Amino acid sequence: MTLNRSALVPALKNVATRLRIDSVKSTSEAGSGHPTSCCSMADVMAALFFAEMRFDPADPHNTDADRFVLSKGHAAPILYAAWAEAGAFDRAELLNLRKIDSDLEGHPTPRLPFVDVATGSLGQGICAAIGSALNARRIKSDYRTYVLLGDGESAEGSVWEAADTASNDALDNLCGITDVNGLGQSRATMWGHDMDALAARWRAFGWHAIVIDGHDMGAILDALAEAQRTKGRPTMILARTIKGKGVSFVEGKDGWHGKAFKKGEELDRALAELEKQFVPAPAGVNLTALIPKPAARPRAVDSPKPMAPPSYKLGDEIATREAYGVALAKLGEADSRVVALDADVKNSTFSDKFEKAFPDRFYENFIAEQVMVGAAMGLAARGAIPFPSTFACFLSRACDFIRMAAISGVGIKLAGSHAGISIGEDGPSQMALEDLAMCRAEPNITVLYPCDGVSTEKLLALMAYHPGPAYMRTSRPKTPVIYDVDTTFTIGGLKVLRESASDVATIVGAGVTVFEALKAYDQLKASGVNVRVVDLYSLQPIDGAGLIAAGKATGVIITVEDHYAAGGIGDAVAEAVASAGLTVRRLAVREIARSGKPEELLDRFGISAKHIVEAVRSVVPILK
Amino acid sequence: MTLNRSALVPALKNVATRLRIDSVKSTSEAGSGHPTSCCSMADVMAALFFAEMRFDPADPHNTDADRFVLSKGHAAPILYAAWAEAGAFDRAELLNLRKIDSDLEGHPTPRLPFVDVATGSLGQGICAAIGSALNARRIKSDYRTYVLLGDGESAEGSVWEAADTASNDALDNLCGITDVNGLGQSRATMWGHDMDALAARWRAFGWHAIVIDGHDMGAILDALAEAQRTKGRPTMILARTIKGKGVSFVEGKDGWHGKAFKKGEELDRALAELEKQFVPAPAGVNLTALIPKPAARPRAVDSPKPMAPPSYKLGDEIATREAYGVALAKLGEADSRVVALDADVKNSTFSDKFEKAFPDRFYENFIAEQVMVGAAMGLAARGAIPFPSTFACFLSRACDFIRMAAISGVGIKLAGSHAGISIGEDGPSQMALEDLAMCRAEPNITVLYPCDGVSTEKLLALMAYHPGPAYMRTSRPKTPVIYDVDTTFTIGGLKVLRESASDVATIVGAGVTVFEALKAYDQLKASGVNVRVVDLYSLQPIDGAGLIAAGKATGVIITVEDHYAAGGIGDAVAEAVASAGLTVRRLAVREIARSGKPEELLDRFGISAKHIVEAVRSVVPILK
Repeated sequence: MTLNRSALVPALKNVATRLRIDSVKSTSEAGSGHPTSCCSMADVMAALFFAEMRFDPADPHNTDADRFVLSKGHAAPILYAAWAEAGAFDRAELLNLRKIDSDLEGHPTPRLPFVDVATGSLGQGICAAIGSALNARRIKSDYRTYVLLGDGESAEGSVWEAADTASNDALDNLCGITDVNGLGQSRATMWGHDMDALAARWRAFGWHAIVIDGHDMGAILDALAEAQRTKGRPTMILARTIKGKGVSFVEGKDGWHGKAFKKGEELDRALAELEKQFVPAPAGVNLTALIPKPAARPRAVDSPKPMAPPSYKLGDEIATREAYGVALAKLGEADSRVVALDADVKNSTFSDKFEKAFPDRFYENFIAEQVMVGAAMGLAARGAIPFPSTFACFLSRACDFIRMAAISGVGIKLAGSHAGISIGEDGPSQMALEDLAMCRAEPNITVLYPCDGVSTEKLLALMAYHPGPAYMRTSRPKTPVIYDVDTTFTIGGLKVLRESASDVATIVGAGVTVFEALKAYDQLKASGVNVRVVDLYSLQPIDGAGLIAAGKATGVIITVEDHYAAGGIGDAVAEAVASAGLTVRRLAVREIARSGKPEELLDRFGISAKHIVEAVRSVVPILK
Repeated sequence: MTLNRSALVPALKNVATRLRIDSVKSTSEAGSGHPTSCCSMADVMAALFFAEMRFDPADPHNTDADRFVLSKGHAAPILYAAWAEAGAFDRAELLNLRKIDSDLEGHPTPRLPFVDVATGSLGQGICAAIGSALNARRIKSDYRTYVLLGDGESAEGSVWEAADTASNDALDNLCGITDVNGLGQSRATMWGHDMDALAARWRAFGWHAIVIDGHDMGAILDALAEAQRTKGRPTMILARTIKGKGVSFVEGKDGWHGKAFKKGEELDRALAELEKQFVPAPAGVNLTALIPKPAARPRAVDSPKPMAPPSYKLGDEIATREAYGVALAKLGEADSRVVALDADVKNSTFSDKFEKAFPDRFYENFIAEQVMVGAAMGLAARGAIPFPSTFACFLSRACDFIRMAAISGVGIKLAGSHAGISIGEDGPSQMALEDLAMCRAEPNITVLYPCDGVSTEKLLALMAYHPGPAYMRTSRPKTPVIYDVDTTFTIGGLKVLRESASDVATIVGAGVTVFEALKAYDQLKASGVNVRVVDLYSLQPIDGAGLIAAGKATGVIITVEDHYAAGGIGDAVAEAVASAGLTVRRLAVREIARSGKPEELLDRFGISAKHIVEAVRSVVPILK
């Protein structure tokens, strides 16, 4: 059953009024929040949820349901109000907004079943929406993705990375709506209500742009229909709105961002005004009951096939970045959910091996790391297993996205190549020396750092299926394969590569420094000194028991890492062994790096075999 | 003396040919680098350096000299070649490109006197150029700033943050040139040579855009002149070029990005072709001698005045974020070089106090953190003392810029407010729980974390004049003033707030956890247990001797921080005391945070006074 416009419009207007009332009430009850940012977009929300999207309020995760991403996450109260209106939960729950025992947090997070990715850091939701739209294409679903942005948010560069990517990928299943209320947090936006200026921007980036009055319900419905008809490119609906719409004493006024109405006279006055805005509507219309459900679309479950064992022989020379590409293509063969995303360095990270095998599951984001990671978040939230990769140093461009991915708990599988000074001549701008710190800082990101081809391949397969976000660090130089193809690795494990009953120290390395540690072992051995060598391929989680055992057996622990001193291997090991009263001597890069040959740099910055030998001799009491 | 066009153009063409030859030779000698990316822009470089810019090759830092920023930093060899051609150093030095003992690094860094900020992470140079252009306005100089971008680089969102900011600030002293060679690293760019599409983008963002043939010297000169005449907005010259121009077998070919010509036949063939491209030019023309020098423009040296002492009384309640704003305005009064940058949260960070006092030195970047930090880099490189501030969590949006600021060593003074779970109800997206890890990871960033109004003000003054980049973390909740206004603080210092001869443990806090530690002190004291309490207001550098002394005196060190466990206070203290064989028990946030009241969250996530007391009782042997 479809309502005619004359019945639909007043019914939607009344929904919008209820959403405003709920937003105002819940924020006043919480004592904080952004009611005016909700009020400007209430009409759009009513139209989207009750006359446009196909979804099942009882089954928000439905594979074929249309998706809604609230990119302006501070308007969370109206998102919650809309789902309550749709019957997903009891409206009374809205009054628990922002309480510690409620999942109705200040900004949306996937603790709520109807939230795919956390928002609240602006300019990210639209990137995730691209991932959601790409996923529809991947699984051959006709679901559409809607994303609602703030106008102030359009200043974020990530929005324009998203604009480029969506038009380049011709995502006509993506519809953006910008709530142009003209006011940011602290002042008017750059554009105010200059709708032509805003439309020109989206058009220049290849989108179909529609300018409407965001409080004209008919115009909203027409624009959404026009977006559905628009093929070959995404649509941006630019809705001219009034911040605080519906509450006369705050409408369009600066200074009301992020302020709840004070309970008592102020709130009462706002609510009294809103209550008067209900309009006569046909009796018996239940818009919630009319929400079109996604079609039941049975899909074959595509079970992952087992991966063939690695094809390396001991001693083969291969860079872990290349082994990553090899492994990713093999994993893609084994599991159709695996997808890869690139930022125009696929021939350096070797993700091009995946592209060659599975061009339909490879997404090129050009030189735009934020949308690469953001799209991966959207893909992961919708069931794909996405591997975004670039130089590890350039993942820092997407640091805030990685932070939000951690809050979201989504299973993005980051890979960063060209770690550390061992890249050599390109110099410090291309060296990742803080990527371990960045990823370890998030308590739920798995951090892996293989040193050879076999461990890279085995860890990649593990990371794909380990829940939540993960990061793999790979290196530029070729390194010899040191593990048999049937070696078992575990997330949270380590490998003891050399040990004896007379070890005087434990050397803990990972990646390229494993080989420096092995060289140091040989040199020390030649002079009659035995040391234990550990390959710490899993930094987070970390094998504290294994490290403590080695530390207790040898008395001394020395870490060596191609990374700056703070936040990396030394810190990880130090915390892991602290409970046993053990301390760590750290070899790490301690000043800004520079260009040079890899081996020269390892030596210059104190992390070569020579420095390990010196550290052992200076730290071990009997050798001093 | 000005040359007429008929003499100038052939002379410039020959300069361009020499620059190509130098770029090809130096990269082949290095065995790596990006000669084809240099060749496409050689004509533009010749025109800029030898017919447009006013500078003194012997005095690159001259205050009134035009600035050139190579945003596509991988074309470093031609930047070096241009400065050698201008006589800044001996051309023979070019053959030391990328060697460990040469400052001619793989990508430009300020080790070289003619480089203001390091580039090589794309999309950043144009942000720094905005800072340079703003600085000209600040010091009332007519110098112009030129920035050369790659076309692939235009996919970076930061470029569009810069585009918005520059047009909003009407920076007609800024001229961009995009080298549209149509090829990225791994494939064609999104736009190829669709010059209209590129021009439409810049025009939509408010720039004057000029499309030219980037190998037509006359057209380049005309466009630069048109840019000089264009008032009220910045100009972008879109130069259609051929990648590898001048070397027929690589011209416009994919697969030649970042590849040096192999010495021998390949290099010889390239050089032979280039050598043939010299054209007849008037004899005796010395373009280098004709470079217009910046006018000698004596300026009064504006010595900073002393700041009045803080006006707080012991016990006053003020959030450190507000004390930051108060202090910044006072510092602005004392020193005209101080400027502030905001990303539309000035009423939350309290940088609006500075804006009210010094509107001309306050730069609003709207919700665009990357350009905020990038512009600060440019300002700092040109003599300003810039304080960019936002919520600490949103500084992670500019993480890669902070990384490049560290490589550059420029004195940006970052401030991040709303640190940690103590912000409360807004929830995890607004909480910085990894900012200390991010900033500490860079070995040359000073990291400060005051707990009260007095220390905030004193540390802000210190950070302004401490060389290099610095970060101050501030908090949202009000805290009591605990320091007398005449207390002395030092970068690298700490304060022992409570001590006795019978202390059984040292509690190290900073920011809000200082007050939890003081509460724990009181509770323990009441039961007859004495602990030492340390305010670790300087995390980097850190007072290792002071911490070791406290640790040795008390036997036990417990850190407590409103930050995730990795990379923060616990790690900093653990490394600082490791050499004394001391270990640290860390209280930190160890899972993804959520919304709630501040005091509820401190308790839920294990960093409240209660948890400190429990930790003391569980760790101190005699209390167990």
